[in-house]
Amino acid sequence: MLILGIDPGSLHTGYGLVEKQGSALTPVDAGRFSCPRDLDLPRRLAHLAARLGELIDRHPPDLAVLETPFHGMNARSLIVLAQARGALLAVVAGRGIEIREYSPAEVKSAVTGNGRADKDQVARMVRLLLSARGEGWASDATDALALAICCAQRLKLDSLAVRAAKPL
Amino acid sequence: MLILGIDPGSLHTGYGLVEKQGSALTPVDAGRFSCPRDLDLPRRLAHLAARLGELIDRHPPDLAVLETPFHGMNARSLIVLAQARGALLAVVAGRGIEIREYSPAEVKSAVTGNGRADKDQVARMVRLLLSARGEGWASDATDALALAICCAQRLKLDSLAVRAAKPL
Repeated sequence: MLILGIDPGSLHTGYGLVEKQGSALTPVDAGRFSCPRDLDLPRRLAHLAARLGELIDRHPPDLAVLETPFHGMNARSLIVLAQARGALLAVVAGRGIEIREYSPAEVKSAVTGNGRADKDQVARMVRLLLSARGEGWASDATDALALAICCAQRLKLDSLAVRAAKPL
Repeated sequence: MLILGIDPGSLHTGYGLVEKQGSALTPVDAGRFSCPRDLDLPRRLAHLAARLGELIDRHPPDLAVLETPFHGMNARSLIVLAQARGALLAVVAGRGIEIREYSPAEVKSAVTGNGRADKDQVARMVRLLLSARGEGWASDATDALALAICCAQRLKLDSLAVRAAKPL
């Protein structure tokens, strides 16, 4: 199962693709889409939507994962981020891909065991969990990979819970 | 010149296409894209983006016009509306169409002469200005047409100002 984590931003949107086979997680692709700073917001949104569309066409995921909106943010940042999120969600949902959402605390907790971990701790644990210590991922990319890892763990817990609930 | 006004909403997005020839304004198409209420937000955004794309392909506008975000709104409504706006902006900008933005007060003032006019006054004046009293437009549609009319008036004022600035 291929899981795509997306960390939206109007200048940089992180993405991370993780292949889940049983308990094994393998990074398939990760990085960020960056917009030229001289583009206005509508053109940045179009740029990000086009890049995400290309990525999905190259690696069609079974699930896409985003953080729930929007934590500890001023109104101006929130408006810009929500517009970027909307442009990206329309691309994912337009291709019929199922979407999951987790809060930042759920993601940090799933990856590090601590719902208040900082970005560096998350990045270190992402590399460890994906056996990919040498990769030069930007923090947008490790944040997106953390979302995919969180989703993979939830799927595993859900399937265990289903098994446990079955009569022997 | 064909001008497309867009009034974003996650359930209903209004649109209004106005043809400007000199001072004459003619309505070309107006209405709203409505989403089935049982769709989740990502699928509503994809639905609206697809409908807007089809409209633009049918009637390619020279300019698209939206209201500046976001006036007198609670955080929850604002987040939903901003995501709808982002999905729609990405469609317009992705097709290379120029975008203008005006505040609600500017639009009301352009259409009725009163920056605090209510929805009914706006709707009445839109019908009058477009010589279209009999049309059964929803208020989302008249709001979108008001945006297109506001834009057309600004273009006219801008061209007059350019002419006035030229030496005799």
